[in-house]
Amino acid sequence: MLIYGKNPIYEAIRSGQKIDKLFLLRKKLNTYNSIITEAKNHKIGIEIVDDIFFQRKLKNSLHQGIAAVIKSIRTVLYNLDFDKIEFLVIADSITDPMNLGSIVRSSLLFNAEGIIIPEHNSSGITSAVIKSSSGAVFHQKIFMVKNLRNAIKTLKSEGFWIYGLDMGNNLLIHNAKIEKSDRVAIIIGSEGKGMHRIVKESCDFIVSIPTTEIIDSLNASTAASIAMWEIYKKKFLSS
Amino acid sequence: MLIYGKNPIYEAIRSGQKIDKLFLLRKKLNTYNSIITEAKNHKIGIEIVDDIFFQRKLKNSLHQGIAAVIKSIRTVLYNLDFDKIEFLVIADSITDPMNLGSIVRSSLLFNAEGIIIPEHNSSGITSAVIKSSSGAVFHQKIFMVKNLRNAIKTLKSEGFWIYGLDMGNNLLIHNAKIEKSDRVAIIIGSEGKGMHRIVKESCDFIVSIPTTEIIDSLNASTAASIAMWEIYKKKFLSS
Repeated sequence: MLIYGKNPIYEAIRSGQKIDKLFLLRKKLNTYNSIITEAKNHKIGIEIVDDIFFQRKLKNSLHQGIAAVIKSIRTVLYNLDFDKIEFLVIADSITDPMNLGSIVRSSLLFNAEGIIIPEHNSSGITSAVIKSSSGAVFHQKIFMVKNLRNAIKTLKSEGFWIYGLDMGNNLLIHNAKIEKSDRVAIIIGSEGKGMHRIVKESCDFIVSIPTTEIIDSLNASTAASIAMWEIYKKKFLSS
Repeated sequence: MLIYGKNPIYEAIRSGQKIDKLFLLRKKLNTYNSIITEAKNHKIGIEIVDDIFFQRKLKNSLHQGIAAVIKSIRTVLYNLDFDKIEFLVIADSITDPMNLGSIVRSSLLFNAEGIIIPEHNSSGITSAVIKSSSGAVFHQKIFMVKNLRNAIKTLKSEGFWIYGLDMGNNLLIHNAKIEKSDRVAIIIGSEGKGMHRIVKESCDFIVSIPTTEIIDSLNASTAASIAMWEIYKKKFLSS
């Protein structure tokens, strides 16, 4: 997998992600001194390349003249182990890589300790997701599951409260009674369609973000970030 | 200007924006019945086109098989008139069209009544901004100014409190004492660099969104949206 962009590669190295090779654009070399030093410390091979490499491999991407090859992502997990986790995000079929990356980024910054993603009907953890996450993917546990409903059952049996984010006149997110000691999972539905019916039915609470409703809705990752922010305040910040 | 995408064009028509011509992709015609009816009601000319049109004019865009020509954007204003406005957003040099569009979208949904954008060193209101705003641009007052500092001076003289969003250990956004009757403007800094020094110095308060700081920062439009959400709650929602 060829990942790209300054922040993603900086975070990959910093988080101990195994990198097979680093590619740097010759004419931008002097802007990457600190990354070159880090790469040398981690014994990562560096290849200096010209524009043609990036044009061929990453033509429409915001690559910033830096790319790297990784074989697998250390933080993508296929075994569910929620031990000691208190705050989880569940992405129910987010198909837009920009949105998924942005959700991972906010989840890390608002102290969620993992994200659950279905293996099908969802964007995978692609280079575009990694870029949009600003490298947060390399610091966040990403649990890939075959069946979201089963994962939610497991969470419930372990004492998690399951919140689903949806539109409409429900419990408003900032009024949800979340205690610091609660184990909480928040489900984010897909762009446009929201949560699957069967997923929505397994929620303990449906919460909404009230808006003026002048146009349809908030962007999916914006709504997700606001929900995570509200949970972060309740669970982790002293008021 | 050629705008594109289903929501932007739906909102353009709905808001009374003047549209010179509508282009629809032949093979997607039947998905646009309601827009076709609206267009006919507004006497907008429709041209049915094939793939080649969209490939030529909008090749890498998420155009969804619909585009329209507009000459000017009704909501982009060059005269400052803040009469009756209580909540404004100031975008200090947001250069990424996706971020600017997303900020306009959230601003409309959180009841900001206008956005101030500098004419230089900022993304303009492009087709990409309109798309990313999901058409919110056509419902939101967008004040274009030559000089942000002068605009801020005007706002202060009209009794606005100026909040600047920044990182660091400042007043936390959710602890800001904002009354329902306050006139409020929130300044959003650029991606990476934040507010200009001279803009920052003209703020009454600098507010921050606390995070885990595991990686650098929230996405600019996410941070902006959370700040607007907090102001929206304080000014417009009963607690």
